[in-house]
Amino acid sequence: MDQFPQSIRQNIVAGDLSSAAEATRAFCRAIIDAVADSVAVVKPQAAFFERLGPWGMNALADTIKYARRFGLIVLLDGKRGDIGSTAEAYADAYLGSESPWGCDALTVNPYLGEDTLVPFLDTANQRGAGVFILVKTSNPGSGFLQDLRNDGATVFMRVADTVHRASKSTCGTSGYGNCGAVVGATYPEQLAELRRAMPHAWLLIPGFGAQGGTANDVAAGFDSHGYGAIVNSSRGIINAFQDKAYTGMNWQDAIARAARDMSEQLPKPKN
Amino acid sequence: MDQFPQSIRQNIVAGDLSSAAEATRAFCRAIIDAVADSVAVVKPQAAFFERLGPWGMNALADTIKYARRFGLIVLLDGKRGDIGSTAEAYADAYLGSESPWGCDALTVNPYLGEDTLVPFLDTANQRGAGVFILVKTSNPGSGFLQDLRNDGATVFMRVADTVHRASKSTCGTSGYGNCGAVVGATYPEQLAELRRAMPHAWLLIPGFGAQGGTANDVAAGFDSHGYGAIVNSSRGIINAFQDKAYTGMNWQDAIARAARDMSEQLPKPKN
Repeated sequence: MDQFPQSIRQNIVAGDLSSAAEATRAFCRAIIDAVADSVAVVKPQAAFFERLGPWGMNALADTIKYARRFGLIVLLDGKRGDIGSTAEAYADAYLGSESPWGCDALTVNPYLGEDTLVPFLDTANQRGAGVFILVKTSNPGSGFLQDLRNDGATVFMRVADTVHRASKSTCGTSGYGNCGAVVGATYPEQLAELRRAMPHAWLLIPGFGAQGGTANDVAAGFDSHGYGAIVNSSRGIINAFQDKAYTGMNWQDAIARAARDMSEQLPKPKN
Repeated sequence: MDQFPQSIRQNIVAGDLSSAAEATRAFCRAIIDAVADSVAVVKPQAAFFERLGPWGMNALADTIKYARRFGLIVLLDGKRGDIGSTAEAYADAYLGSESPWGCDALTVNPYLGEDTLVPFLDTANQRGAGVFILVKTSNPGSGFLQDLRNDGATVFMRVADTVHRASKSTCGTSGYGNCGAVVGATYPEQLAELRRAMPHAWLLIPGFGAQGGTANDVAAGFDSHGYGAIVNSSRGIINAFQDKAYTGMNWQDAIARAARDMSEQLPKPKN
């Protein structure tokens, strides 16, 4: 929150989380206002709302509702994952037809096993919602488990195979199914390999901008028509007003401009 | 919620999540009242509160506070995990000195890599809180990634090695450190192997009762003094009033009795 614009930060009372949550809500609304006409998807990061306790969760619910009012797709980055009836509860929470949060898609962690992904996929399919399974993440140490090899195949390729089957079986006329994969922009070689391995899966590509990923790095995530990838920039957009490239603009204009500038760097659809 | 006792369920108005959250809060308080004198730890499952939207999150915060008032250790089962500043946000949210939730420990997912566990471990150590890393989970399909072998060692043993180092480096006079491991009661053979591999780590052992784990199955999780394991039963306790073993008791007494009965089945400390 110390990165918030001064006009929003000034309303935060130290030690008062409800004021911090209110500031977060105001900042999120302003970001949505600024980017709504140049982006397709917004990805709230659950952790930053959870850090503000129940007040933060109200801000999250409001942010999701506000973004959907603009017709934006809301992909909640929660990286949830659990077993049995608990996995069902998470799926119902975020992807079910009566979800109180109302998001369109959720990121999910595969460590617990393929059986634990089924409730998420089933619930999402019933509502036409989406599931993005972590395959190869953008952090420097993502290879710790993901790059281990078993009989020659990496752990992340085993997850990719699950994503491939789930996306193929739900594939619509777009050529893409309801199950996508998270693949970091910071691993362009694996990105190309994973694009080939999951031709019917949307790829969510974090790591663009602040984490070091470039337009060149993410190009391999798109299909030959220029579709199939959602490239995510978080700090590069929401903190754009601190960037000297946008000096002299008011903070909301800087955010709007950064979103358009990023969009122009990405491959254009070819039809 | 259709498993709640009738006297609590009757207050739920269909389609009104605030009434459902209020019923959940009341049920959780009644469970805590019933088990507080026979258990050391309670483990709220975040998913079931998240399913009730922001109202549910208020019920979760209340449940944590209520349990701590009895001196119970509150281990939030959230299975969180993310990278960089987001991992820090989750750690601050649940384990930080100014956590708005105020839990004592959190379950964490290792798929994203060892570097992503560091913020959780550091934050926990600063406050004397705990982190329980998923190692070998209790579900039937947990082997999907966890049992893969790389150079002869399983994925779960690689995670266990991380837990071992983190628990050893924070080990106090009890012989146990702040980093624990989740190991399912449903895999007794691996449980024995993992107890040996992580001598300074508390083991959180789910899968007892409803999932099929028995007192024999969990015995290998304890050290030679009868310490070092937290055996978790959820449905076996909170739904005990539906069990014919407790017919004729009021529901809160049945829960209290089931907790004591379970406790008596477990190994006794020897000093």
